[in-house]
Amino acid sequence: MKKLYTLSIALLFAVSAFAQQALWGGSQIVSPEINKDNSVTFRLHAPKAVKVQVTGDFLPTQKVETPFGSYDAPGYADLTEKDGIWEYTTAPLGPELYSYSFIVDGLTIRDPSNVHMIRDVASVTNVFIIGGGRSDLYKVNDVPHGTVSKVWYDSPTLGTDRRMTVYTPAGYEQNRKQKYPVFYLLHGAGGDEEAWMDLGRTAQILDNLIAQGKAEPMIVVMTNGNAGECAAPGQCPEGFERIPGMQQRGMMEGSFELHFPDVVKFVESNYRVVKDKKHRAIAGLSMGGYHSLHISKYYPDMFDYVGLFSAAARFHDSSDCPVYQNEKAQIDAQFAKNPALYWIAIGDADFLYEENVNLRKYLDEKGYPYEYVESDGGHIWRNWRIYLTEFVPKLFK
Amino acid sequence: MKKLYTLSIALLFAVSAFAQQALWGGSQIVSPEINKDNSVTFRLHAPKAVKVQVTGDFLPTQKVETPFGSYDAPGYADLTEKDGIWEYTTAPLGPELYSYSFIVDGLTIRDPSNVHMIRDVASVTNVFIIGGGRSDLYKVNDVPHGTVSKVWYDSPTLGTDRRMTVYTPAGYEQNRKQKYPVFYLLHGAGGDEEAWMDLGRTAQILDNLIAQGKAEPMIVVMTNGNAGECAAPGQCPEGFERIPGMQQRGMMEGSFELHFPDVVKFVESNYRVVKDKKHRAIAGLSMGGYHSLHISKYYPDMFDYVGLFSAAARFHDSSDCPVYQNEKAQIDAQFAKNPALYWIAIGDADFLYEENVNLRKYLDEKGYPYEYVESDGGHIWRNWRIYLTEFVPKLFK
Repeated sequence: MKKLYTLSIALLFAVSAFAQQALWGGSQIVSPEINKDNSVTFRLHAPKAVKVQVTGDFLPTQKVETPFGSYDAPGYADLTEKDGIWEYTTAPLGPELYSYSFIVDGLTIRDPSNVHMIRDVASVTNVFIIGGGRSDLYKVNDVPHGTVSKVWYDSPTLGTDRRMTVYTPAGYEQNRKQKYPVFYLLHGAGGDEEAWMDLGRTAQILDNLIAQGKAEPMIVVMTNGNAGECAAPGQCPEGFERIPGMQQRGMMEGSFELHFPDVVKFVESNYRVVKDKKHRAIAGLSMGGYHSLHISKYYPDMFDYVGLFSAAARFHDSSDCPVYQNEKAQIDAQFAKNPALYWIAIGDADFLYEENVNLRKYLDEKGYPYEYVESDGGHIWRNWRIYLTEFVPKLFK
Repeated sequence: MKKLYTLSIALLFAVSAFAQQALWGGSQIVSPEINKDNSVTFRLHAPKAVKVQVTGDFLPTQKVETPFGSYDAPGYADLTEKDGIWEYTTAPLGPELYSYSFIVDGLTIRDPSNVHMIRDVASVTNVFIIGGGRSDLYKVNDVPHGTVSKVWYDSPTLGTDRRMTVYTPAGYEQNRKQKYPVFYLLHGAGGDEEAWMDLGRTAQILDNLIAQGKAEPMIVVMTNGNAGECAAPGQCPEGFERIPGMQQRGMMEGSFELHFPDVVKFVESNYRVVKDKKHRAIAGLSMGGYHSLHISKYYPDMFDYVGLFSAAARFHDSSDCPVYQNEKAQIDAQFAKNPALYWIAIGDADFLYEENVNLRKYLDEKGYPYEYVESDGGHIWRNWRIYLTEFVPKLFK
């Protein structure tokens, strides 16, 4: 009987596995394989291909010219073929979360052997992590884990329900009496309420920093910064037919900033939080840095901690929107109230570098205190993850 | 100033968009395009390709023989090329959530123009929805939305923290006095705590049925049924290096069933729920149906509603595990307590059909009441979504 049962289980799995395999091109090949020396081997079964390359942010960059300026793009490496299996092994890699794609006869594809992918705007790439340094913070480790929720909130200002991601730290459900500080974390152009969680590894970074005693237990709220969209692509009534892109509705015209009290009100009505300025922080990357700059100055009593990560740190001086009127006076009013932390970080190769020089120049002229971090590199997620690991330990102390 | 500002925004987006495009092969092509008559056009830019096909569950099936039996696989259609763009338009399609992949010179790939993908075990396919019928329940509509959370719970029985997905209905946060019934919904072999949410469209189905007044507001708890794994691939300390597959640790040897009171205890300690049998339901697909069968009979006071969706409805008659001892007597004890609903559904082409015939035969012999639904087709998600839309309205009435 036992034998028959075992056979029967085998059948259940085997037929399905065969079906899967045949239908959807599942693969028995291991790719990527992280070797003992932290080199990585990529493999692809493509017997008919003429040329197979891998591109990824672990390969030497190459400069690309565009009508709008130049940038450093990841390089390419050729895979070599044997018995229909193409293969390439990198040099040993340093600790980091890396992205890659294959290019088969000019067609960019995902690695069919790797189900781990992250969407960045309209592109989906495979990912892997080399641990051993700071990137251990990006891993799921054997520590208590917070809860990650996709929540819809009501915005009377925008006249719609909107979706956000909320991280509540481990113990939130059990410690019924404890009230928590809240960190509002904003994405950049082309992003949405999923970006910081997926590309930013926010849940892993918070879980690990809190477990190590380096960060206070806190709630992290990740909104959708496109005021004209209710949610990420595929999560709105437009469904799968809305095509993601850098241009979304309602990005930098003030309505996101004006609606922000709706977010804070929802969070403070529905979560156990300390409802004062000392227990609220706001930060964002690129466009989210721009939003953080403008929200924190327009509502100077709201946030005691402000982080600008590679921010579009720009002013308008005049606009129909009150958020953008008398902006320097708003900054003055904000600093008159002595925020606990104003933190600016940018890469030395970032195309927004000059805007940050100008912002710092104004703060310096006025003698307003702030912390400044200048890192290597440009406008990339590697930097934003690093900034997050550096900013979070400074909050609510 | 305004002009300069506008230019500056354009630059911010343009450089990034160019970079994106070049780096990761983002595409300007629209694919899939759902036409007015619900035919669908697929497009792929692949100037060097010799042959491009699309495979998907909307094409006529073809019988495939394997050493373990035969099954119906989706068919293939050839795309035709003009100026490097390959294209194919289907016949008008009926309402459904469909999956597809491209096959380029023998290599199965995802559609680079479609960021919407769902993982099924170790395979990732693109998806789209044709609405207009039952599949409108699978869409994000303009109705109140519940919250979807990834939560870690403590299992003393398994000696580890484990991850689950929890759906709380719209209004749960606001209606602080209301207590809710709980529906435990279990995945099949190769799945995990994400399967019912991603492939099953559980949040959309619940949102829509509740908004239409066809289902009671309820909490839905989706566990990980592989007792030897703590979470889905990529969500455990093994990280991205654990390869998903049909065979996971601890699937059908009793430990998942034995630990289930840990799940119920966690839910009833941390959510506002009614803590009695009348307000608990359990259902699952395939292996999850097997788990539901065994859990509901081994703990006959726990669940008043039981759903077996294409279940592996099999008995052991003897085993070292108490869950599998004297199984018919357990069934007798369960039915002696008059469960409110015992619901069995299976497709007429399902390879588990006979096991369900045998189960029903026993229930019929004993005169135990149950409801039975026999649908078209086999062991596929289309059926499990349909079963979910039929089972949920019967609960807690």
